[in-house]
Amino acid sequence: MTEKPVAQVHRGQILFTASPEKFSAYENGYIVVEEGKVKGVTRELPREYREVPLADWGDRLIIPGFVDLHLHAPQFPNAGLGQDMELLPWLETYTFPEEMKYRDAEYAKKVYSRFVDELWLNGTTRAVVFATIHQEATELLYRLFESRGLGAFVGKVNMDRNCPDALKEKTRQSLAATRAYLENHREKTSLVKPIITPRFVPTSTADSLEGLGKLAAEFQVPVQSHLCENIGEILWVEELHPEQPNYARVYNAYGLFGQQPTVMAHCVHCSDEEVELIKKNRVFVAHCPHSNLNLSSGIMPVRHYLDLGIDVGLGSDISGGHKVSMFGVMAVAQQVSKIKWLESEKKYAPLTTAEVFYLATKGGGKFFGKVGSFEEGYEFDALIIDDSNLFGDGLTLEERIQRLLYLGDDRNIVERYVAGRKNENPRI
Amino acid sequence: MTEKPVAQVHRGQILFTASPEKFSAYENGYIVVEEGKVKGVTRELPREYREVPLADWGDRLIIPGFVDLHLHAPQFPNAGLGQDMELLPWLETYTFPEEMKYRDAEYAKKVYSRFVDELWLNGTTRAVVFATIHQEATELLYRLFESRGLGAFVGKVNMDRNCPDALKEKTRQSLAATRAYLENHREKTSLVKPIITPRFVPTSTADSLEGLGKLAAEFQVPVQSHLCENIGEILWVEELHPEQPNYARVYNAYGLFGQQPTVMAHCVHCSDEEVELIKKNRVFVAHCPHSNLNLSSGIMPVRHYLDLGIDVGLGSDISGGHKVSMFGVMAVAQQVSKIKWLESEKKYAPLTTAEVFYLATKGGGKFFGKVGSFEEGYEFDALIIDDSNLFGDGLTLEERIQRLLYLGDDRNIVERYVAGRKNENPRI
Repeated sequence: MTEKPVAQVHRGQILFTASPEKFSAYENGYIVVEEGKVKGVTRELPREYREVPLADWGDRLIIPGFVDLHLHAPQFPNAGLGQDMELLPWLETYTFPEEMKYRDAEYAKKVYSRFVDELWLNGTTRAVVFATIHQEATELLYRLFESRGLGAFVGKVNMDRNCPDALKEKTRQSLAATRAYLENHREKTSLVKPIITPRFVPTSTADSLEGLGKLAAEFQVPVQSHLCENIGEILWVEELHPEQPNYARVYNAYGLFGQQPTVMAHCVHCSDEEVELIKKNRVFVAHCPHSNLNLSSGIMPVRHYLDLGIDVGLGSDISGGHKVSMFGVMAVAQQVSKIKWLESEKKYAPLTTAEVFYLATKGGGKFFGKVGSFEEGYEFDALIIDDSNLFGDGLTLEERIQRLLYLGDDRNIVERYVAGRKNENPRI
Repeated sequence: MTEKPVAQVHRGQILFTASPEKFSAYENGYIVVEEGKVKGVTRELPREYREVPLADWGDRLIIPGFVDLHLHAPQFPNAGLGQDMELLPWLETYTFPEEMKYRDAEYAKKVYSRFVDELWLNGTTRAVVFATIHQEATELLYRLFESRGLGAFVGKVNMDRNCPDALKEKTRQSLAATRAYLENHREKTSLVKPIITPRFVPTSTADSLEGLGKLAAEFQVPVQSHLCENIGEILWVEELHPEQPNYARVYNAYGLFGQQPTVMAHCVHCSDEEVELIKKNRVFVAHCPHSNLNLSSGIMPVRHYLDLGIDVGLGSDISGGHKVSMFGVMAVAQQVSKIKWLESEKKYAPLTTAEVFYLATKGGGKFFGKVGSFEEGYEFDALIIDDSNLFGDGLTLEERIQRLLYLGDDRNIVERYVAGRKNENPRI
């Protein structure tokens, strides 16, 4: 008898998207996991794994954990509020006043604990997250992700212009704190990693952007920011940077646009030249449809990006977006793609269910490496789904997943795995 | 001591919209209810009610019950499915095959029981509902609403052309069954009432429409149908009725457009002349934003209707729309109004939170009489809301309601009242 103590086998109704074109579906299939990684998905259990512990999930679905490619932890208390403004006044009125509170570590601990629990609850196993300018609170958020066993890139925000004094850093101090933060996490072996995070061009001086680009290169860490979310924002960047032909080129001039792996949130109104640069520099785009509706930003031409082979994932964008749950983000991504189809005179085809599922799993997961699929070698991030409370019998697996995106919520998630480890939360 | 046994007093955090412009908010206020109707809302308990039983809801919100002005009970098993088609192929592929099943009363009982429970669970205290062509199943749905104590207009659908044979009625039989249904419910004293329900123009012959118009007049019952949901549908009506200048005028020619109180669902693409007729004939419009997204119908210009003083309510439109919960319908109504604002070059202002709340309560409630508000003389339909699971303290009542629309679900509804009666569901 060959014992493989680090192996595990899961049996159930398996669904994932190796490509955006279609679901891979295995009714009563098996997933073999070794050392936290998927060894294979099969319809019959291979002989050599018959002695390995088997988790039989019966009629439950087994799907990859969700990846949230863009959200702001400190904005969590504002989720569902402030639905009456566009981006720039919304930042001034709702967001900046909330973010000021995070100089208080006690406050940060209270909110961030709840925030990370909420991600856990909703099956988001990996997230790319903005914190605030405050290093102490950012470290705290970092440790909370570590202690909850969720994967994340956590960014200390940099701002040194065009924001309230209480959030305005001195450039040198901002870069020094960022360096210290990166040095604290040089050992990038955990599921949590630092990420360079200028808020967006309007709130970072050229000196700051230059310094951050150099830090990204020196520490070999990725970058996240915002791009072309709102027309007012874009006009402002044009005013601030007449020396550059467009918004994207400002980031690019300072080594913050794909020189290291980069996620840009929104990209609702990119020019053709900017889209070309996104493609050329292999920048990831975080599509945040709830946020784009709530802040009247518009509808992002996600089909256009996909047609060009650009990497796209989905973001809840708390609190521009209101809900952490990626179920709802997938559904609304499909909904707004239909309006884009109408608006574009049927040029941009609506997203299929397989496509939105891909975006929320493997699409965003690619930013983390081999994450978001059950192909061989992928991290075993998985959700076990009980959809028996939803009405309707005799559905195919694909119909069950479609219904889940539209009707499901945290109550349907009964177990979570991250990188092969069962992830339980004693607080909930 | 003056006992008033039929009176009740509720104390709590009271919110309602007497007009769409703003919330009426009473922190720690009192609602006095007599004989099922609101007597008044006050900040201090009037002396003469001090001996009346008081329900003290503490920090919980007290809001009017929700009104769903348009949905299809038999489509409930399809909720969340079939997100890949426009209206006409969607009817053929998903809807008609499901509706055929309701000739089987056992099947109808199973689905309709669950459907009515789901409305109850989600705080929908009044609904305007399509059943199917089947009289027996429609009677069953009618009785289920009665037995659960929810308010509803329940319509037996009429179809005698352009549909599968299994759903195609003979015109004379269709009218005879409708007459029988109306006769069975002449005693319109209950919370449930019949409503004349041609599915839409393409599936009713002129003879059928004429007969239904006469029945509506004879029995003095209201009318519901669909109007201008989808471009393909509108072109089809033009082909079928070259004798009329537009879709609305077909209904109007047969006494089905405001001659009795009438709700038309969708009205996404009405011409100016049709909008004028809606206004003139005081037709209610059911705005169904989830459905209009899911079926790629477009975005309804709700601001335009409101500016003209047309009566508008919200509809979940199960299963064109996927969710029964009016929380989500209100949120998406606000979201799409922002895209309409952008599309219209900022001509049609986005809906405010007070406006979407009004639409889901008093706006649709007006179709039922004095329903959907806590003004004097209104039926006491109310929900008691516990929002303590939602993050963030120190919010105003208006902020709490906004957050609830975006983040709330059935778990937040702890008690329901309909026409003054506490409504408990022993099945849930």
